[in-house]
Amino acid sequence: MHKIDLTIEKIDLEVVAQRCEIVFLGLPNGLACDIAPTLIQKDCKVLDLSADYRFGNLDTYTAWYKKERQDLDTAALAVYGLPELYREKIKISQVIGCPGCYCTASLLALAPLLKQGLILPETAIIDAKSGTSGGGRQAKTNLLLAEADNSLAAYGVANHRHTPEIEQICSELAREDIKVQFTPHLIPMVRGILATVYATLRDPGLVREDLLTIYTAFYRSSPFVQILSNGIYPQTKWACGTNLCYIGIEVDPRTGRVIVMSAIDNLMKGQAGQAVQCLNLMMGWDETLGLPQLSFYP
Amino acid sequence: MHKIDLTIEKIDLEVVAQRCEIVFLGLPNGLACDIAPTLIQKDCKVLDLSADYRFGNLDTYTAWYKKERQDLDTAALAVYGLPELYREKIKISQVIGCPGCYCTASLLALAPLLKQGLILPETAIIDAKSGTSGGGRQAKTNLLLAEADNSLAAYGVANHRHTPEIEQICSELAREDIKVQFTPHLIPMVRGILATVYATLRDPGLVREDLLTIYTAFYRSSPFVQILSNGIYPQTKWACGTNLCYIGIEVDPRTGRVIVMSAIDNLMKGQAGQAVQCLNLMMGWDETLGLPQLSFYP
Amino acid sequence: MHKIDLTIEKIDLEVVAQRCEIVFLGLPNGLACDIAPTLIQKDCKVLDLSADYRFGNLDTYTAWYKKERQDLDTAALAVYGLPELYREKIKISQVIGCPGCYCTASLLALAPLLKQGLILPETAIIDAKSGTSGGGRQAKTNLLLAEADNSLAAYGVANHRHTPEIEQICSELAREDIKVQFTPHLIPMVRGILATVYATLRDPGLVREDLLTIYTAFYRSSPFVQILSNGIYPQTKWACGTNLCYIGIEVDPRTGRVIVMSAIDNLMKGQAGQAVQCLNLMMGWDETLGLPQLSFYP
Amino acid sequence: MHKIDLTIEKIDLEVVAQRCEIVFLGLPNGLACDIAPTLIQKDCKVLDLSADYRFGNLDTYTAWYKKERQDLDTAALAVYGLPELYREKIKISQVIGCPGCYCTASLLALAPLLKQGLILPETAIIDAKSGTSGGGRQAKTNLLLAEADNSLAAYGVANHRHTPEIEQICSELAREDIKVQFTPHLIPMVRGILATVYATLRDPGLVREDLLTIYTAFYRSSPFVQILSNGIYPQTKWACGTNLCYIGIEVDPRTGRVIVMSAIDNLMKGQAGQAVQCLNLMMGWDETLGLPQLSFYP
Repeated sequence: MHKIDLTIEKIDLEVVAQRCEIVFLGLPNGLACDIAPTLIQKDCKVLDLSADYRFGNLDTYTAWYKKERQDLDTAALAVYGLPELYREKIKISQVIGCPGCYCTASLLALAPLLKQGLILPETAIIDAKSGTSGGGRQAKTNLLLAEADNSLAAYGVANHRHTPEIEQICSELAREDIKVQFTPHLIPMVRGILATVYATLRDPGLVREDLLTIYTAFYRSSPFVQILSNGIYPQTKWACGTNLCYIGIEVDPRTGRVIVMSAIDNLMKGQAGQAVQCLNLMMGWDETLGLPQLSFYP
Repeated sequence: MHKIDLTIEKIDLEVVAQRCEIVFLGLPNGLACDIAPTLIQKDCKVLDLSADYRFGNLDTYTAWYKKERQDLDTAALAVYGLPELYREKIKISQVIGCPGCYCTASLLALAPLLKQGLILPETAIIDAKSGTSGGGRQAKTNLLLAEADNSLAAYGVANHRHTPEIEQICSELAREDIKVQFTPHLIPMVRGILATVYATLRDPGLVREDLLTIYTAFYRSSPFVQILSNGIYPQTKWACGTNLCYIGIEVDPRTGRVIVMSAIDNLMKGQAGQAVQCLNLMMGWDETLGLPQLSFYP
Repeated sequence: MHKIDLTIEKIDLEVVAQRCEIVFLGLPNGLACDIAPTLIQKDCKVLDLSADYRFGNLDTYTAWYKKERQDLDTAALAVYGLPELYREKIKISQVIGCPGCYCTASLLALAPLLKQGLILPETAIIDAKSGTSGGGRQAKTNLLLAEADNSLAAYGVANHRHTPEIEQICSELAREDIKVQFTPHLIPMVRGILATVYATLRDPGLVREDLLTIYTAFYRSSPFVQILSNGIYPQTKWACGTNLCYIGIEVDPRTGRVIVMSAIDNLMKGQAGQAVQCLNLMMGWDETLGLPQLSFYP
Repeated sequence: MHKIDLTIEKIDLEVVAQRCEIVFLGLPNGLACDIAPTLIQKDCKVLDLSADYRFGNLDTYTAWYKKERQDLDTAALAVYGLPELYREKIKISQVIGCPGCYCTASLLALAPLLKQGLILPETAIIDAKSGTSGGGRQAKTNLLLAEADNSLAAYGVANHRHTPEIEQICSELAREDIKVQFTPHLIPMVRGILATVYATLRDPGLVREDLLTIYTAFYRSSPFVQILSNGIYPQTKWACGTNLCYIGIEVDPRTGRVIVMSAIDNLMKGQAGQAVQCLNLMMGWDETLGLPQLSFYP
């Protein structure tokens, strides 16, 4: 009944470094930063899936994750592992801090708007909805089927720790310090994230077709981003099991706002798939290698 | 096996008017306005659950519901059936247009902010999430369990027909014409609505406690509105099976925004329960009569 | 936000006995038998929801629940709290061991067949399906939404501890020692149990209508048992939130078997509702007092 | 957004026959038998997913599917497309009638028992549980999420049309005419079937280990059947997205019964995957080609 014959071994960094060219780290926050420096020293590349290498400013990291950092040199090498925004840097990097599910969905929705200066940045609001697998496999009462099924709520309102991470990248894109409103919600389903993003357009004359053109151009070289044509909005299920991000766009001429919806599978483009995509880039392989593009449906 | 011994009869308005003091109309949009005038003439009161008697401006109704109106006299008598805002008018009214689920959740969240002038009205964004029972019992492919389960999407973005209804009441509250952003989402669950409402505060010095005080005072005489204390956000399941509306409030000092979350059972406070609450008021009974306050949990 | 103003107090049996005429015990197995004797001594009646007072033979209890019993006198007073089978005894009892969800659904389906000698007892097979709330509110990984949703499995096959309890009552009904096959399954839903019961008829000439007549007569005085007419099979949802047990019956003339399906709400007729029903009987009240008969639907 | 660039064309059997060596037919019951003869005449092979070519006895087919058959010659060529039982015949066949989900799960669980004469055939009971995708994508009220979620019921008790199909193959295996009890249930989930099969052992001395040995040997050359070791019972989710059938076995020495549980993905091994597996055999390819063996989890 075992379809995979790998065995779990104790971590011995010497052995790991001898055997591996690249190491994936999938650990609780605050552990990778103790391990990665040794691996780097031994000429391994590191793909970290925790928060440890996502922050340019380590003070921000320490404020939110309550851990003092000693690995300043290694951290200085780290690149944010979102290929759609940092593809060229990822190709030549030694350490990647892969963004998780909320940040990936939020940033892919916002990036073209901020990069092109199309919105008033301070009006950006991200209302995100996630399946419960985003909470991990640990037994928690609020994630029991009997509790979480057929219910819905927000959490971490105004103070979720993914906010500074989103703001860091948004600020880079906008070339100014910006704040965003980020509100996550827990949805009674297993997989999937939908980010509904609202922002006021600088130019109220822009219409949906303009934005579709801009998004399509922005993601022209990004095989995993799918811009949906007029009036189609993404279902999270369309991304289920794939590394894809589906983006739908609407402009409301009455309010002058753009509404962008992005859907991903939180365990693929929002986690493991993203890391494999980065691996492909770091190794000089085809970016889509080994990554499914046909969704698991229904 | 039949627990209710009422039988379904053909509608004969003469008979209905003879037997009934008040008539509930639960019909597709556009039918109540043909029936209500006759009932009113015969001294019945009418509680309509469709959109027909919710609009002060019938041109707005006709634009969205594609039906010309002949019942101008009856429509002029109609009161919007949200007791928390129009309790005194409902008590003495002959025709009530009961608001549905999205409008109820949205308006109860926004009302204190608009009435007291606490926010910049044009910044109001309502991101609403509804279970699939909101779509009725008609067989539609997209509402099949095999399609809708484990998925999530927005719909009607920037042009849902509940938008003008919400705006009508918001404008009354704010004493100026205002536009709101309203985005509904379909959630893989049976019952429940959560409205997450965002708005920029006029006075950035306001803190959560101020707003809790204001909301508590605003809803002091409203037995079905429950203001949640600091840092607790409503689960839709808490309202399940009840006529309650749970409201949670957060202020983000970083962005100057207030975030209000309101949860109701879309089939109770968002539909049938609301109508019974109006009935109680119209009859001079205790407002809570016959309406459950303990949720169906888990 | 608190709709119930009772407070949780430390258990002091003296105080409890002074204040209460009847005490409900809802504790993990093995605790009630330490508490009940004191309460009985002080003239309290006891309604226990654990397994402690369900067994006539305490050796069986000890074999399955790994606890030696000291309360032989109290145990000797106990009556099995299934009103449909032991109504008269319950009325005059001091200690009730209320059966749980699986046993209630199984026994209500089997009782008329065994009592009337209609089946070959050793052919009885109970294939039971339960929502995950049957597993309690404790955090267990296998009951997480992300694990349990969209999946299905049997457990405790051939050795579930409700088997001896079902067999005890079945043997009483059949007036001979019998063994049954009981297989529970975990279903991805919150509430509800369906027991599908198979057995070979002694008289292959019996048809469905005969059995409907027999079941209807058997449960004539049982207000919570609803026998469904020809060809209708129970949905667990019909019982949801009620104390009802819906029973559907089919005879397969090709195989000579009867198939009985019984559906209950595992938290009502399968737990708390059952105890209230017993309370009503013990107090001489109307058996249906305080117990809902209209299901929570949809 | 389109990941597959095939277009849907009108059926022209001439063109189809010219272009194709093998044709998959996925049509409502009763259509394939009008089309297949022409394709066979033109030297195409046919893989039919409907019921049309599953019956050796066409009278049985006509009795259950209400269609007179004209294609006697073609029907005489047909082989039952369950590779685990008819692998060698499938390899050289021109027409395959692929079994659906219930029959596949039931037969894989029962086959070793019947083939080896281990059980009293007339004691066989199949209690099957299926996700709602088994009902197809057509909009039906009872399959709406708001109706089907959080509920559970049997249907087609004692007269489901898969019964004669299961009995036909069981009779072949047992080399005598046998009847089985088959009861399907609708489960509130999208994918997956679990068949819980009960039967009385001829030799009450057999233990679980004996049966594990027998099953393992029986399915030695069947790469998609996974026999679970002692005390592990299959979760339908383990098979989700794969062509695998997981089988768990228990013996109850108290009752002399064997209980076999088989889990498949009803849309894979229970439908499309099965057909691809047959294709591989007919073409002389590796049986597992193109068929996933790692489940979609969680």
